[in-house]
Amino acid sequence: MSRSSLDALVEALRRLPGVGPKSASRMAFHLLQHDQEGARLIARALESAVQQVHHCRRCNTFTENEICETCLDPQRDASQLCVIETPADQAAVERTGSYKGLYFVLMGRLSPLDGVGPRDIGMQRLFERATDGHVREVIVATNFTAEGEATAHVLSEGLKARDLKVTRLARGVPVGSELEYVDLGTIAHALVDRR
Amino acid sequence: MSRSSLDALVEALRRLPGVGPKSASRMAFHLLQHDQEGARLIARALESAVQQVHHCRRCNTFTENEICETCLDPQRDASQLCVIETPADQAAVERTGSYKGLYFVLMGRLSPLDGVGPRDIGMQRLFERATDGHVREVIVATNFTAEGEATAHVLSEGLKARDLKVTRLARGVPVGSELEYVDLGTIAHALVDRR
Repeated sequence: MSRSSLDALVEALRRLPGVGPKSASRMAFHLLQHDQEGARLIARALESAVQQVHHCRRCNTFTENEICETCLDPQRDASQLCVIETPADQAAVERTGSYKGLYFVLMGRLSPLDGVGPRDIGMQRLFERATDGHVREVIVATNFTAEGEATAHVLSEGLKARDLKVTRLARGVPVGSELEYVDLGTIAHALVDRR
Repeated sequence: MSRSSLDALVEALRRLPGVGPKSASRMAFHLLQHDQEGARLIARALESAVQQVHHCRRCNTFTENEICETCLDPQRDASQLCVIETPADQAAVERTGSYKGLYFVLMGRLSPLDGVGPRDIGMQRLFERATDGHVREVIVATNFTAEGEATAHVLSEGLKARDLKVTRLARGVPVGSELEYVDLGTIAHALVDRR
């Protein structure tokens, strides 16, 4: 029996991160039964994104141009460079409205267990970008996970060796939270980093 | 600023059931950064499924032919018709290996609050299918949710009015479970339906 295009669709949807066989079936069923227009929309959006989205030659984020809008913006402070893991993290920093410098997007983090080494996250490109003569301070804003911290450590060493000022986002108690419900590691860090 | 194809992709992925803005971003990022082949695969699978998958003219399930393989199988007992909500439920019943009759797939359930009425779930088509002269017993296997139960009730009334024997899947304690951890409603039903 040849595999039906329904089975092929369920199989394909499992390529999405966090989607197992049950969710994939549910998605396929929903699209075919209730939202064929949505199915066509997703197909077209995927095709066009794969064709048109590239990496910015300066900051490595996703863009459809050679250099992204943020990097081209003359209002931004070229002396500050914020290093983040993903475009989603960049969007989070942008939403705060409190950072006016430029970015470098690693598109990943060091993860030796998964075979992700310095070359895979474009560390050399970051070093070249950071030593363009304009950058004075590199703010390492990788995530506060084990892998993000390890990445931050390796990056900092390399950047300091190139005579750059390197800072890290402050760790501490989240705004709006009550100490009673904050984990102990966070409180300990907030004590050490108290101002 | 024209909307980028990345934004368009995130927007499109939100049409998938259970996918919010964060998951959609994560999916788009994953596909573009790590699995462009997967992105193309999903796009092609969607296009081809939307084009080729139709409803079986007899049982209403998804198929690429006019009549699905199950309905065409001469080994199946044409005197039994099992009514289920979705192809996923049908697959679950099939996996038990303990049912040899035919199916009718509602492709939904009655849900007045969501505006899903008898016409939307093809109830009239079920009545026609069930009165083909071969069907002796209709096994109503809609889910044991409020909506599934309501659907079962309405179906049963209509089927009984057409002089068909109507049965419902047994409710009871799941195999392998300990009474201590089974909810009270289930135990109560198991007592009422005791054999």
